[in-house]
Amino acid sequence: MDSSERSEHTEPSDPVTQLQLTPELREIHDKVLRTVRCLVADLCQQYDGGHPGSAMGMAALGLALYKYVMCYSPGNPRYFNRDRLVLSNGHACLWQYVYMHVVGFPTMTMEHLRSYHSSDRGSICPGHPEIQFDGIEVSTGPLGQGVGNAVGLAIASRHLSATYNKPHHNVLDHMIWCVVGDGCLQEGVSLEAIQLAGHWKLDNLAILYDNNGVTCAGTVDLTTSEDVNARMEACGWQVVDVVDGVDNISRLVEVLLYAQHNRQKPTFVNVRTIIGYGAWFQGKNEAHGNPLGVDGVANLKRQLGMNPKTHFHIDEDVYRFFADVGPAGRAREARFAKEVKAYGQSYPVLAQEFVERMEGRWNTHWQHLLPAKKDLPSSKVASRVSAGEIIALLAQHLPQVMVTSCDLQPTTNMSWPTSKAFQCPVHDTTSGTTSGDYTGRYLHCGVREHAMAAIANGLAAFNAGTVLPFTSAFLMFYGYAVPAVRMGALQGLRIIHLATHDSIAIGYDGPTHQPVEIASLFRAMPNLLYIRPCDGEETCGAFMVAVAAEKASSVISLSRHGLVQYPQYSSRGGVGRGAYVFIEELKADITLIGVGSEMVFAVEARKKLAERGFKARIVSFPCQRLFEAESRQYRETVMQYDQNKPVVIIEAYAVNGWERYADAGYSMHTFGKSLPPEDQVYEFFGFEANCIASKLQDLIAEVNQSGIRSLRGDFRDLNVRFV
Amino acid sequence: MDSSERSEHTEPSDPVTQLQLTPELREIHDKVLRTVRCLVADLCQQYDGGHPGSAMGMAALGLALYKYVMCYSPGNPRYFNRDRLVLSNGHACLWQYVYMHVVGFPTMTMEHLRSYHSSDRGSICPGHPEIQFDGIEVSTGPLGQGVGNAVGLAIASRHLSATYNKPHHNVLDHMIWCVVGDGCLQEGVSLEAIQLAGHWKLDNLAILYDNNGVTCAGTVDLTTSEDVNARMEACGWQVVDVVDGVDNISRLVEVLLYAQHNRQKPTFVNVRTIIGYGAWFQGKNEAHGNPLGVDGVANLKRQLGMNPKTHFHIDEDVYRFFADVGPAGRAREARFAKEVKAYGQSYPVLAQEFVERMEGRWNTHWQHLLPAKKDLPSSKVASRVSAGEIIALLAQHLPQVMVTSCDLQPTTNMSWPTSKAFQCPVHDTTSGTTSGDYTGRYLHCGVREHAMAAIANGLAAFNAGTVLPFTSAFLMFYGYAVPAVRMGALQGLRIIHLATHDSIAIGYDGPTHQPVEIASLFRAMPNLLYIRPCDGEETCGAFMVAVAAEKASSVISLSRHGLVQYPQYSSRGGVGRGAYVFIEELKADITLIGVGSEMVFAVEARKKLAERGFKARIVSFPCQRLFEAESRQYRETVMQYDQNKPVVIIEAYAVNGWERYADAGYSMHTFGKSLPPEDQVYEFFGFEANCIASKLQDLIAEVNQSGIRSLRGDFRDLNVRFV
Repeated sequence: MDSSERSEHTEPSDPVTQLQLTPELREIHDKVLRTVRCLVADLCQQYDGGHPGSAMGMAALGLALYKYVMCYSPGNPRYFNRDRLVLSNGHACLWQYVYMHVVGFPTMTMEHLRSYHSSDRGSICPGHPEIQFDGIEVSTGPLGQGVGNAVGLAIASRHLSATYNKPHHNVLDHMIWCVVGDGCLQEGVSLEAIQLAGHWKLDNLAILYDNNGVTCAGTVDLTTSEDVNARMEACGWQVVDVVDGVDNISRLVEVLLYAQHNRQKPTFVNVRTIIGYGAWFQGKNEAHGNPLGVDGVANLKRQLGMNPKTHFHIDEDVYRFFADVGPAGRAREARFAKEVKAYGQSYPVLAQEFVERMEGRWNTHWQHLLPAKKDLPSSKVASRVSAGEIIALLAQHLPQVMVTSCDLQPTTNMSWPTSKAFQCPVHDTTSGTTSGDYTGRYLHCGVREHAMAAIANGLAAFNAGTVLPFTSAFLMFYGYAVPAVRMGALQGLRIIHLATHDSIAIGYDGPTHQPVEIASLFRAMPNLLYIRPCDGEETCGAFMVAVAAEKASSVISLSRHGLVQYPQYSSRGGVGRGAYVFIEELKADITLIGVGSEMVFAVEARKKLAERGFKARIVSFPCQRLFEAESRQYRETVMQYDQNKPVVIIEAYAVNGWERYADAGYSMHTFGKSLPPEDQVYEFFGFEANCIASKLQDLIAEVNQSGIRSLRGDFRDLNVRFV
Repeated sequence: MDSSERSEHTEPSDPVTQLQLTPELREIHDKVLRTVRCLVADLCQQYDGGHPGSAMGMAALGLALYKYVMCYSPGNPRYFNRDRLVLSNGHACLWQYVYMHVVGFPTMTMEHLRSYHSSDRGSICPGHPEIQFDGIEVSTGPLGQGVGNAVGLAIASRHLSATYNKPHHNVLDHMIWCVVGDGCLQEGVSLEAIQLAGHWKLDNLAILYDNNGVTCAGTVDLTTSEDVNARMEACGWQVVDVVDGVDNISRLVEVLLYAQHNRQKPTFVNVRTIIGYGAWFQGKNEAHGNPLGVDGVANLKRQLGMNPKTHFHIDEDVYRFFADVGPAGRAREARFAKEVKAYGQSYPVLAQEFVERMEGRWNTHWQHLLPAKKDLPSSKVASRVSAGEIIALLAQHLPQVMVTSCDLQPTTNMSWPTSKAFQCPVHDTTSGTTSGDYTGRYLHCGVREHAMAAIANGLAAFNAGTVLPFTSAFLMFYGYAVPAVRMGALQGLRIIHLATHDSIAIGYDGPTHQPVEIASLFRAMPNLLYIRPCDGEETCGAFMVAVAAEKASSVISLSRHGLVQYPQYSSRGGVGRGAYVFIEELKADITLIGVGSEMVFAVEARKKLAERGFKARIVSFPCQRLFEAESRQYRETVMQYDQNKPVVIIEAYAVNGWERYADAGYSMHTFGKSLPPEDQVYEFFGFEANCIASKLQDLIAEVNQSGIRSLRGDFRDLNVRFV
């Protein structure tokens, strides 16, 4: 059932510019739509693949946005005050590429457009939009992510305008447009993000729903019966319908301008379209991911009154129709520059900070804010506490810092004394204690890890260096956010995930909360630094690395329980090299790799071995990816494989990946167990110094007898009996 | 704002049993509530930890369910026709444990109850409910999962009753109750599952919302402003409010019976409660996860008119109050047995199948259904196609098989000619082609991977062996489902995930769709078999292993593109051993590990090496976990480390974990690239036989010169230049 039949909605009531449709305008609109649809068909047919359906269906929406509504400057895709467009249904990328071409994005030439699906390795038109190319705000493809990204962009925008705009100085004022398909509105990440955007009343955000009623598998009613408009209203959005979204340009313009000018809630524009409009498979799921066929393309063109013999053709008058977009953009840029200048005269200090943030420049001395080693506590302290203190420092000195949190902030600890919540100023909580406004930099995301991480991607993508987003949750629950964490790393976005409660020592909560295998994923994920510090000093090092990694995401993995501090051994600089010698020992019998919470077992086992007459050296190994970036010489110095002594990793995680460095492991082979925290749960799995020392002693004896060669290809799981 | 202020809802209108509240009944109800609340407080105080808040708040709901509403038999927790209760807010487990004790679940003695949070390794009262203990339907803890599980249980129940119930033989008729907290309703997985349950009109399902308005971080309005009732109605649920859920037993009973008897839609019961009711921190977020303190417990007891000096005390009349529950359960069991017997007389064939399914017995000869090797195609075939044929066979011969799918079924290919959709019979789709009813075994889940996997957990947890659930999606998009896949493996549920499009060869779709690191997670995840077959024969082996693994989950990893078939080398039996010799070669210079789609590169590189005068043997390695379960002797026979020749893994994934077996790798170090499928994208990353052979030749030369020892601790990433 079409949801329009069930819900009645407010019509646009604000006075907005009505498009005066002259016959000439009607004619050129029609021509543009026909041209775009045929071009999309040609581009898919060219290499016999691609996604024509939604690109063809949304042609009118593209015209309305790129010609009449969006505030941008094609000549300068990074123009700071631009509207940002997220194509969450990324498979429809041709729609975006084609409009970017006709409005004149300099890089989007016809030649590049035609590289879609080609073997051209330098193509800027991949199968889904990718952030590294001009005019693309975020990479999309995995459905639903774009909604979270758009919410993040809207937060960044709203936060900046609340922080810097002043009376008579409305410096920043732009919209975030998020185009979604049916699939995007089924993914949990978008449902979470929609709840949050409604809560925060992000009125600078509009979702434009390409409601074609068809997904890959068939009609949407195969899997969905909800009244989407009613659901959006229940979540705090205003809803507007466009019944004839395939061609009613004036209605689209009216509605989009309404979304732009109405300032109360985010807007959901339910645009009824027809997938593959005009083609033989229009309205069918075949239109989603199949080319039309040679005859299909020819028939489409004939039907639309276009010449079936010409391909990739755009009439001059189509280019001419969009010719004013470039100059309008340049004028917009000039006005903005003037605004910024005037603002600087009225508010010189704020303006300086604003300009620095626009340029992504920072106080480069932030590292000096970190406590010196001598000032760190020497008694046991949880690394979540060490990290919380650093966050407090960073947040107070760097306006770029924004921290998102998933409900557990009383235990993740990533807050600071003067932190203020990002909230709609008119929103009052029952508890009252946590009110805030849009200048707040602490984002309470509820129990929505996936949306949190997708929002962080949007915060980082807003503009390089303008916002430095941190997320925080239990390491285990980053499992909920995997696709968003991945998209951050894939896009080279500087996002720092603060993952607490990172060991089985969480205890009572049991195996559902003990993250034994999550680190394996993050260590394997390209362009992500998974850093697991063993004490406060290494936690400083972890932040130094993560904040400095401009083009990578990081996960800093932190303990719930108090950790022994090792000021005599640990080194923040060492963290930057991935691994370093923690305790050296000449003519050692064995090298132990200690990591994070389990460093204590390496150190204690070493003592037990010493009592038994064996010498163990210890390597601290907080980050595999950083170590791999070091020289072979450095790596050999640290690991000393040439000594032909065994190397053993001690970590209460699945051992996968450590075999690169170690011959044996003391690790986890099950999901864990609910037992009292720290010692008892560790002990259950054999993490106890005497127990470990005995196993190590046996290994040393074997190697002394049979040589190190006996271990090759026979990695020893020393505590596997605990399976 | 309380959502009750905004939405008006239908009151229960069906005639349902009204509880006649005598003064005596009022008195004992009150005593039970006071007893339960004090007991929960004692149990948390005992070891100074735990989650008292929601357990105390929901005391009345527990009384209503366990005494008056739920159809179950405490003496036989596995009674087949029982109502099933899922505690999605698993931290409230004490609520469940306490009621299980008072109604007389045999294992839940007071001694066991008191083992909550103790160091007792044999405790059946862990910090979150765990499936292996009597009376627990599913393990919960990670929020939102339980909602998906409950939808799965409701599907299994509805499917079985549609398949086996007949006129005058209403054999199966029970409810699924899902208790949720505020957090559960924020997680995307529950939002997805709620959409699906509404779509399927699962009227045997009720969500009981412990609406206490407080989460760990504060009041819920800190992060949520939605009108939850309106949202649930938009999703196709009927909504009932209980305003005074802390103590209004008769209202609760009335509403729950209404949910049980009303048969149109799933029911959402919005129960307003007060977290930590009666305690000093009632209504505050401190109540979520903190004990009351010694004084707090004493004060609670005084306030409730209980004796502050007694602990863990339950009056005899409380036990007496629940004493009829056991006998009622036994009577219920007897009625069910009689029903089944009568059914058997009327429908002997169906009844036999029904009894077999209740007992989890199967046609054990299903393996003979698989095509013999000689009957498999010899030309190129995608393993998604090979797998699709096996699914078709299994589904047609085993009524246990249910297949869930996330929108992509036209490409995942996991359907069969006579497959029927699981749909509400009164539901018609626009396309018409895909109508179905509740006997259907194909579940269209839309673009909701996370709910799909959580639903599969519920299907498997319904009863061991009654349903054999398969899920299907692109491997990349199992990233969306990580927490649910994990919960399946953690609970030892036999669920088989069919993960297609498992290599970078997916091509055009680009890095967002190329699953380079997902396998690392699944290989590290305990109790999960990640199996990546290289051709149709190995695909048969993968199914044999996965279907036979009664207490483990599996991911079968399948290609989109056509794979060369290797009937002369590949072996279904070999898959069961994890790895096996694919091509033997005496006095080989090198061992190559080939896996899945990339086996072809091992075989082709071997040919190139032969042309250059080198001998390579090949090991096929579809499953690491199975190989680890083999004897050391078998492993050595396969890998032949004693020959001191290098071992190289060739796989287009992150290499993490392969270092256990290999000295060098041809692998992926980035997220991939959008290029035409198969050869071009492979070639971009150096996967090309000549290129590989040259690298291998260099490695052989080095080892011949310096010995195998030179490779120790110096794993070689042979194509890392492609970073």
